[in-house]
Amino acid sequence: MTSHQVVAVMGRGVLEAAEPVASGDDVGLTRGDGCFDATLVAWDGEGWLVHDLDDHLARLRRSATALEIEAPDDEAWIELIGDALERWTGGNVALKLVLTRGEEHRGEGPLAFLSLTALDEKTVAQREGIRVVTLPRGYPSDAFAAAPWLLGGVKTLSYAVNTSARREAARRGAEDALFVSADGYALEGPTSAVLWLRGGTLATTPVGATGILDSISRRTIWAADLPWSLAEELVTIPELLACEGVWFVSSVRGLAPVVELDGHALTPPADATALLRAAIGF
Amino acid sequence: MTSHQVVAVMGRGVLEAAEPVASGDDVGLTRGDGCFDATLVAWDGEGWLVHDLDDHLARLRRSATALEIEAPDDEAWIELIGDALERWTGGNVALKLVLTRGEEHRGEGPLAFLSLTALDEKTVAQREGIRVVTLPRGYPSDAFAAAPWLLGGVKTLSYAVNTSARREAARRGAEDALFVSADGYALEGPTSAVLWLRGGTLATTPVGATGILDSISRRTIWAADLPWSLAEELVTIPELLACEGVWFVSSVRGLAPVVELDGHALTPPADATALLRAAIGF
Repeated sequence: MTSHQVVAVMGRGVLEAAEPVASGDDVGLTRGDGCFDATLVAWDGEGWLVHDLDDHLARLRRSATALEIEAPDDEAWIELIGDALERWTGGNVALKLVLTRGEEHRGEGPLAFLSLTALDEKTVAQREGIRVVTLPRGYPSDAFAAAPWLLGGVKTLSYAVNTSARREAARRGAEDALFVSADGYALEGPTSAVLWLRGGTLATTPVGATGILDSISRRTIWAADLPWSLAEELVTIPELLACEGVWFVSSVRGLAPVVELDGHALTPPADATALLRAAIGF
Repeated sequence: MTSHQVVAVMGRGVLEAAEPVASGDDVGLTRGDGCFDATLVAWDGEGWLVHDLDDHLARLRRSATALEIEAPDDEAWIELIGDALERWTGGNVALKLVLTRGEEHRGEGPLAFLSLTALDEKTVAQREGIRVVTLPRGYPSDAFAAAPWLLGGVKTLSYAVNTSARREAARRGAEDALFVSADGYALEGPTSAVLWLRGGTLATTPVGATGILDSISRRTIWAADLPWSLAEELVTIPELLACEGVWFVSSVRGLAPVVELDGHALTPPADATALLRAAIGF
């Protein structure tokens, strides 16, 4: 039997998955005021391997710091992840860590919980290739410079636009969206970084003023031994269409070659895809 | 005795306020994927009066439609509000209606709940006057034209930037923030519309391409019998500083005269403040 989901709450332990965790006064629920992080947990033959756990815990801490939320220490998360994985009887699984500012009117402090959720077939199938449509994100590519209250690069719980963009992509017959800045540059997907290969250089969008998330999968690829130069630079959509290959990367879905962009067929080279996939390890 | 908060969930009824309502799989909690609305409930001597209830229910329905979430019908909300108010033993109170898309991996459908929360003293005191700082919002003033996936004008649960902006305002010694577009125009506060009076015209920022919320308090004022022309137009911050008066309006705090903007003292005329306050009724 495969368990579909396990939920565990800091201070309460593992729950029945359907059991509520957040009260009607929790600002994570009423205002998206909190942060999260997510990664893949895979069985390596002897035990569960949480992909890039230290990096994800570090990014969650950075998100919490930007929001001025006191985060649990890493050891508490690691213990809670262990407790949850003891109850997990399925295969490879998505781990999500969630931290809210807590209740607005009672002084109980932050709410921290995690979920383990079976990978859905669609996500796994998208590793073979995705059709992507570009969607304006509204912001110029430098909107987040010197404006920390805009929470650029912070993985907040306020993801309504991200999920709305994926619904719009689905309406247009695509699996994913690529956000484009008001001045015409590729930014990121709603839950992925974008990579492209041209003239022997593997490139991605710079973090910082663009407000995009600092992708851990992208960092893992940058740290690998690959036959290309590496760059962080802005790229327009016509330039992307002329590249040798375009890929989306994210922690749970992994590498997804972009096989169609705004209706134009793309054919990322299979050898490059294989090298990138090997770099992120799945 | 004053009860501090009452929470009631559609299909479950009135709960103990601390009792959790949303599971760890609810996308309202994990992605801010839902919408809300809020208004003031006042005792009118004979019973509870929910200010502009029909307008708030209508706006919540519009928000739900934009998010493609099936909303409960108004009668169900009205019944739940009545059940909650029967338990309320305090004075005037803030009513918040919350609707999430529901659980991501179980097919239970949307989660709908409400809270009644005592007004805090700070909010009430701000009706006498607020200091405001301007904060860039990042978007140009036309960013939301023809981009419905950006959810302009939709009162989503993804309010992390709104709450972050109010923390930034507090750091700067102010009670509230005024968002400014990338091209230099006043937009709205994190939870308020902005009004200004100059040369016999009362004006506010237009909805639509600006992405600002369609303020119900602002509409109530526009429908009142007032001695000024009315306009919806873009205004710069230097223009605002030269106006006869600037006010913030919102459904729970009501009218708040802006007495300082970016450190410059403003003195909204007392007779104009009195007329505006009479128009919104508190």
